[in-house]
Amino acid sequence: MSPKRYLPILQWLPGYGRATLASDLLAAAIVTVMLIPQSLAYAMLAGLPPEVGLYASIAPLMVYAVFGTSRTLAVGPVAVVALMTAAAVEQVAPQGSPEYLGAALTLTLLSGLILTLMGLARLGFLANFLSHPVISGFITASGLIIAISQLKHVLGVEARGHNLLELLVSLGGSLEGVNGPTLVIGLCVLAFLHVARRWLKPGLGKLGVSARPADMLTRAAPILAVAVTTLATWGLDLEARGVAVVGAVPAGLPPLSLPGFEVGLWRELWVAALLISIVGFVESVSVGQTLAAKRRQRIDPDQELLGLGTSNISASLTGGMPVTGGFARSVVNFDAGAETPAAGAFTAVGIAIAALLLTPLLAYLPIATLAATIIVAVLSLVDVKAIRHTWNYSRSDALAMIATIGVTLGHGVESGILAGVGLSLALHLYNTSRPHSAVVGRVPGTEHFRNVQRHAVETDERLAILRIDESLYFANARYLEDTVMELAARRPGLAHIVLACQAVNVIDASALESLEAINARLRDADVRLHLAEVKGPVMDRLQHTEFCREMSGRVFLSTYDAWRALHGESDGTPSPPGAIGLPLR
Amino acid sequence: MSPKRYLPILQWLPGYGRATLASDLLAAAIVTVMLIPQSLAYAMLAGLPPEVGLYASIAPLMVYAVFGTSRTLAVGPVAVVALMTAAAVEQVAPQGSPEYLGAALTLTLLSGLILTLMGLARLGFLANFLSHPVISGFITASGLIIAISQLKHVLGVEARGHNLLELLVSLGGSLEGVNGPTLVIGLCVLAFLHVARRWLKPGLGKLGVSARPADMLTRAAPILAVAVTTLATWGLDLEARGVAVVGAVPAGLPPLSLPGFEVGLWRELWVAALLISIVGFVESVSVGQTLAAKRRQRIDPDQELLGLGTSNISASLTGGMPVTGGFARSVVNFDAGAETPAAGAFTAVGIAIAALLLTPLLAYLPIATLAATIIVAVLSLVDVKAIRHTWNYSRSDALAMIATIGVTLGHGVESGILAGVGLSLALHLYNTSRPHSAVVGRVPGTEHFRNVQRHAVETDERLAILRIDESLYFANARYLEDTVMELAARRPGLAHIVLACQAVNVIDASALESLEAINARLRDADVRLHLAEVKGPVMDRLQHTEFCREMSGRVFLSTYDAWRALHGESDGTPSPPGAIGLPLR
Repeated sequence: MSPKRYLPILQWLPGYGRATLASDLLAAAIVTVMLIPQSLAYAMLAGLPPEVGLYASIAPLMVYAVFGTSRTLAVGPVAVVALMTAAAVEQVAPQGSPEYLGAALTLTLLSGLILTLMGLARLGFLANFLSHPVISGFITASGLIIAISQLKHVLGVEARGHNLLELLVSLGGSLEGVNGPTLVIGLCVLAFLHVARRWLKPGLGKLGVSARPADMLTRAAPILAVAVTTLATWGLDLEARGVAVVGAVPAGLPPLSLPGFEVGLWRELWVAALLISIVGFVESVSVGQTLAAKRRQRIDPDQELLGLGTSNISASLTGGMPVTGGFARSVVNFDAGAETPAAGAFTAVGIAIAALLLTPLLAYLPIATLAATIIVAVLSLVDVKAIRHTWNYSRSDALAMIATIGVTLGHGVESGILAGVGLSLALHLYNTSRPHSAVVGRVPGTEHFRNVQRHAVETDERLAILRIDESLYFANARYLEDTVMELAARRPGLAHIVLACQAVNVIDASALESLEAINARLRDADVRLHLAEVKGPVMDRLQHTEFCREMSGRVFLSTYDAWRALHGESDGTPSPPGAIGLPLR
Repeated sequence: MSPKRYLPILQWLPGYGRATLASDLLAAAIVTVMLIPQSLAYAMLAGLPPEVGLYASIAPLMVYAVFGTSRTLAVGPVAVVALMTAAAVEQVAPQGSPEYLGAALTLTLLSGLILTLMGLARLGFLANFLSHPVISGFITASGLIIAISQLKHVLGVEARGHNLLELLVSLGGSLEGVNGPTLVIGLCVLAFLHVARRWLKPGLGKLGVSARPADMLTRAAPILAVAVTTLATWGLDLEARGVAVVGAVPAGLPPLSLPGFEVGLWRELWVAALLISIVGFVESVSVGQTLAAKRRQRIDPDQELLGLGTSNISASLTGGMPVTGGFARSVVNFDAGAETPAAGAFTAVGIAIAALLLTPLLAYLPIATLAATIIVAVLSLVDVKAIRHTWNYSRSDALAMIATIGVTLGHGVESGILAGVGLSLALHLYNTSRPHSAVVGRVPGTEHFRNVQRHAVETDERLAILRIDESLYFANARYLEDTVMELAARRPGLAHIVLACQAVNVIDASALESLEAINARLRDADVRLHLAEVKGPVMDRLQHTEFCREMSGRVFLSTYDAWRALHGESDGTPSPPGAIGLPLR
């Protein structure tokens, strides 16, 4: 239990040198420029004042530098979590009210506590129950909802709703109120950001700019859009012509805040906090692992829970909102050469300076610009091709994905993710409850046994060898009974059934009772039951059971041993002594 | 789609002969004698008037003879389902009220509809998710609750409660009101039935009575107890001395009844109806399969759903209560020589005659006698030893069993069964989310590969072979990533990792993405990823994926092929051509 386990900062801080400092400072400067518009935009997406986004990008980054295990993860507000925050908090308070802000802080605290407790209890594996197709479908659907929810800001109209239908109906009803100058700003920023993403980097490359600076310049496009549209709005006095702007933002460092502790509010928010925690954790760990592997580093998922948990707790105490590791900004941090979490701490200093000095400049920043930034960012997350791709590989996975997308779009983010997890678990259980099995026969002249329906193999009408391609547990135990008894009923001449168990990793108590029942029923029908290729750990357990004592047949080391003994027997040749109860390894 | 599929009666009725008739009539007579006291007792256990039990033993038996696939299953009220009925109906109406009776009919109808729909949708497999330990624990706990709930009738006091604590507190508070004559009757019947179960059969055997008639006489002990105590109560006028009796029971055939169709009531009862359906179905199918196998017959679980579903619908239309196949009476039916479901129809005629003619005799039947019958019957279901037995074999199964018993005793039957199912699914998923895997090495001089930690094997510091003992799916996909990346991080000299997949029955989309990520990360770290022993169906799917095209290494037919190619390579000897993409079978 060394402190290094819980304080990863102790692993890198002692050896921190000047060269590392220079790399980290450069990366921090670049990430700061990228993070300022993102922080403002995601706070707006969560229905919170813009400065909340800045506050959430200061303390959490410092805390993550102490407790996090990824060297390059950039923590802060992210789009999907901001959307989930809005969906949860709108259930308990109206947007814009002090109660809304308070509930958001409580949600952040709850999420931080949940992550921290999961980390202490080493429950990181729970995130594994979100399958890739469910995450992918959820992010695609959330991206679509976010993009459409932001359209109102680009059009300069009012609209609201939690799912696709509500949003579209609300937008459709308000189209006559479109504000011209807002639309022009929105479309220009959209076009500019789209062009920057698509053509700026290759264009700069053709002009002789090397790849890395070209990429950095591309990433800085949003801050350029912010600067230009703010100047234009101020210079042309567009606010008077109906362009909505961010308005007065208080300058200063984050305030100390105390989230509410009312039991009722906690009860209303804990499910949302749990889902936000797990979604944020999964996103963060995927990014962290991908980047760590590129440098042969490792991250520790359970310690990551502690890192993200303490970051969120710090966010809730400094007027912030839920945070997690973001994909785009972590890649930028990595590419810009960040070497330690100190880069994150330096980014926090950069954002703090912005919060102190630059907020007056935000007064004229058009909301349409922020909305356009969000739209371009989230549309890059939408991956419709993945549906066909997944469908071609696995129908079950595709069904879970389509359900996640459908419910998220049609009902909301929380039900979407719950439906996806529920359906993927149900389909997995359904699939393993009807395991593949095959009657096998001997490939002539060899010790190999293959499916009698696929290959020309030797068989014996008094002997059936059944290969089972799944662990035996309660959900398929009765199915095994059916399969074996059907085989016995179909072949009246049968004297021996051998279960070949090379793919059976576990036999649970239900399957054991099924084996006992099969053994007894086969005995009543004068058929003997044998096992072959039972694995060591499985045999260790079976050895001391009633089943093993009662079994009418034997346990053979290999399928071939069983064939030799039982096929020989029916030929009249003497059977060799069988190896009973010998584990395979 | 032949009518024989949905009307199993067509399979046996055309060939029905005189010998079969004689066997069936004898079995029906014996089962009728056994069923009369059981029907009365289980109706009382469900909080319903005694005649309801008789009504539920007439129409359902006739309907099951038409639609059921078991030749010997005896359908009717059973103890556990009666307890679940009382627990459910008491939530919506007070015992003894007309609403209580109406709600019980609605519950019966709902259960019948659910079973029928499950049969039409071929959802029989859902019953598989009740594991053996959960069923066993549930029956043990229900047996204890039933026995203790009936103690009040033996003592002649009032007591009520849905769980152990409530029942014991209520009983304890009412002990001063114990009725002497009632207690004497109750204890005498308990002692008599216990002795009959324990010693009558061996005793008769010693007197030269052969096994089958001795068994039949033993089974008739309850009707003897009913007759003697009824006579005693009438002769000694014990009712005047405080002995509670069944009282006036209307004579006649079952009335036509119309269950209520209020939406609110259906909504309140459907979860209970679903649980009753599944528990009843599981009990019935287990008995039916056991008996069918003894004669090498088969039952069809999906058609059984239709048989039980229509039986329950008929019960709800003829003033009955939920029914299912009972264990004890089916065994008696089988042992008495029943050959076709006609035996059940004849039993129904016997019960109908009893309902017409014998009900006046029931007026003096002491309730304590029925309670004692129930107590002796259900205590034989209690199996405490099974807990230790299961614990020794599998901790997970034992935990699910203990949770089922604990929650059933402590909170109630519905929560008990739900807790058991939930916990057993969660433990199963948890176990498969951390699969066993082993780094293996070559047993010198052979083609076999064994765990390096258990055996003295050849290894190669540039080559690691990892055997995975579980199908790869979303819950363990990330665990695989961790395992492989940790292996790569721990052994810096590594150039090749081979995944040996002989126990991998499925690779789902999440696991495929994990393999892609592993491949990419290993490539970044200059390690090549290979597969070996991939099964045919798994390889069929992998072949057309991006992963297969991008993979840095090869697919080997066997682990030995991989060893030869990659171990040879590091020796400087030329590597033989590898077999790429060849499925194993």
